[in-house]
Amino acid sequence: MIQVEEAECLVKAHLPDWGKELLSIDGKAIGYLGENFYSDRNYPPYHRVMMDGIAVNYEVFFSGQRNFFIEDISPAGVKRKSLKNQMNAIEVMTGCPLPEGCNLVIPYEDVKIDNSIANVITESKRSLFDNIHAEGSDVKEGEIIALEGDPINGPLAGIAASIGISSAYFKRTPRILIISTGNELVDISVTPDDYQIRKSNSYALKKSLGLYGFDKCDLDHLEDDTEILSSHFNQAIHQYDLLIYSGGVSKGKFDFLPEVWTKNNVKKIFHGVAQKPGKPLWFGKHEESNTLIMGLPGNPVSSLVCLHRYFLNSNPIFVIIEEEIKSSKNLTLFQPVKLRSEKDGRLYARPIKIKNSGEFSALRGSDGFIEIPKGRDIFNEGDVFQFFSWRPLL
Amino acid sequence: MIQVEEAECLVKAHLPDWGKELLSIDGKAIGYLGENFYSDRNYPPYHRVMMDGIAVNYEVFFSGQRNFFIEDISPAGVKRKSLKNQMNAIEVMTGCPLPEGCNLVIPYEDVKIDNSIANVITESKRSLFDNIHAEGSDVKEGEIIALEGDPINGPLAGIAASIGISSAYFKRTPRILIISTGNELVDISVTPDDYQIRKSNSYALKKSLGLYGFDKCDLDHLEDDTEILSSHFNQAIHQYDLLIYSGGVSKGKFDFLPEVWTKNNVKKIFHGVAQKPGKPLWFGKHEESNTLIMGLPGNPVSSLVCLHRYFLNSNPIFVIIEEEIKSSKNLTLFQPVKLRSEKDGRLYARPIKIKNSGEFSALRGSDGFIEIPKGRDIFNEGDVFQFFSWRPLL
Repeated sequence: MIQVEEAECLVKAHLPDWGKELLSIDGKAIGYLGENFYSDRNYPPYHRVMMDGIAVNYEVFFSGQRNFFIEDISPAGVKRKSLKNQMNAIEVMTGCPLPEGCNLVIPYEDVKIDNSIANVITESKRSLFDNIHAEGSDVKEGEIIALEGDPINGPLAGIAASIGISSAYFKRTPRILIISTGNELVDISVTPDDYQIRKSNSYALKKSLGLYGFDKCDLDHLEDDTEILSSHFNQAIHQYDLLIYSGGVSKGKFDFLPEVWTKNNVKKIFHGVAQKPGKPLWFGKHEESNTLIMGLPGNPVSSLVCLHRYFLNSNPIFVIIEEEIKSSKNLTLFQPVKLRSEKDGRLYARPIKIKNSGEFSALRGSDGFIEIPKGRDIFNEGDVFQFFSWRPLL
Repeated sequence: MIQVEEAECLVKAHLPDWGKELLSIDGKAIGYLGENFYSDRNYPPYHRVMMDGIAVNYEVFFSGQRNFFIEDISPAGVKRKSLKNQMNAIEVMTGCPLPEGCNLVIPYEDVKIDNSIANVITESKRSLFDNIHAEGSDVKEGEIIALEGDPINGPLAGIAASIGISSAYFKRTPRILIISTGNELVDISVTPDDYQIRKSNSYALKKSLGLYGFDKCDLDHLEDDTEILSSHFNQAIHQYDLLIYSGGVSKGKFDFLPEVWTKNNVKKIFHGVAQKPGKPLWFGKHEESNTLIMGLPGNPVSSLVCLHRYFLNSNPIFVIIEEEIKSSKNLTLFQPVKLRSEKDGRLYARPIKIKNSGEFSALRGSDGFIEIPKGRDIFNEGDVFQFFSWRPLL
């Protein structure tokens, strides 16, 4: 058995770069950018008027003139106008290019217009280029404006659109197959016999993966039979980047999977982690195909916790426990919690009692789980732990 | 002009219950449950063995017997077995029903098996029902196991599957149309003229909505023309629950929208909020169709901030600023920030400088924004503010 930190390092070390894929910016992808974005021109691309009002010549205004004849009007979306007489003004709308000859915009609020004469009625400190968003002041043509690895969010979609990118390279998400095993499992639609339960882990795992942006995820179910497991495996490795098994990795007489994998040239990276739940976790790599194999324990809570801790753990944050928690001398504990943001800027976690790793329903109402290091009997209210979330954070 | 808090209350008060929709549990929906889930039977549905090992009679074990003849083996997925002779044992696999006549499971780790005799070699404190997950100990048949309003996450998908629910009622997400206006805007694919820019707000808004689970979102663009705006409006109200306009709500001569809406029987709820950016925000309701109208300012940062603050603001949290921030006497400020989780359980926010609300590119690298109340000149490092995230939290 290895420790949690070692398992984390080993998984991370074996996660390959799955390359890139070209996706629509307008699509549903929620992953990460796979390329840099460069600005196609200066932004703003022209001296952009930022307020509706009048554009005038600053020197004229500064010399004391307060009444301006309005010689023209410039809506947004038309060519740049030019001030014919520098004693005059042009009415300008937000978003239009600053007319040539003007270098000050005075908003409507400060002006009274009568018979084509704009009278500046409010005195306030005005400077050259007030209410003008100067060309190139945000970004220069050719500058980097987004980086590979940036999360795809509203601002990024807007940035892409503004520089004319409708499809971009995203970090490619792996093709994942979730394989549930266990002869006691029946389909969702079946009414189980007394000794049966429905498949549920695969759906939980798939939903978690989906929330984290892993959108290429198929489901399969196999019987506890070495022949079936083996021949299925040899097909699946050519179609998927990651095989996630649920069940069949413990010490039971029908836990055939580790044997099936090693017989089929999977290099075992580890089997067994000093943690609760999730001790029997198995991880390996099929060298020939580069397919990764993750064998999750069959208990519902164990399988979800392992997936989140070792595969979806991109951004853990630190939280403070609100109650004393009993710990374990020998095992790292994963404890489901409900989070609460307090007005002091701290995040507090309330443990959700869970009797055992088969008790799926107890996870309802939890936001994720905290990791409690081994080696102590008890942790006190106020102690701080890493938190792993059922939904991605930020 | 109203205050931010009042605007928030008014928007919330007018958001209707958009009803429910039946969706596949296995689908991509990331919203909220629209019904309660009730347990279809006891969970576990049988006394479920939790460890691979041997099942014996506790009284026999307690009386001192340590050698047990193995009379049978019980894999998972077969009918409940029965211990014929209570001095014997049955080998049991995780997930199988506890054999009749047994009430203690001793794991393989503590047992040595030779010639069908299991010898318990490790002495440890054993109690009745050790390693047995008792029938109904998690949930009783008919009990509520998930509540309307619960977020759809991995655990919830698993709970649904386990009780046989493949499709469930979710909170229905509204049909949304985003309408950009502004004659200076051209399509993504077009190379803009000197005085033009590309449409980008709609894509930013749509991506933000999508990340928050609002998956029914169309885009449209209209010219600044009252006739066009008006006839389009009268069609759109019958097809959408929410119309989000970008641009055309300020004081410009071509900002026709407020007039178009009120002429077409939209009840104005507010126009103008004492905030920066986003002052011209407009909100109303078309009483006849129940369609809501949100008029966002056309500046990119303003439109995103307003959408997040007033429509996607479900779960703000509190964060601590790392630097002094200058505030405003008269306006609530929205300041983009980058978050950092510290080992003391606090969330720290670093302000991202942004020159003006047209500077989209500055939002890159921010996680969201904080709300800085008006009325003070300056806030100090260490002060706490509400944070609104570009991606949903939890």
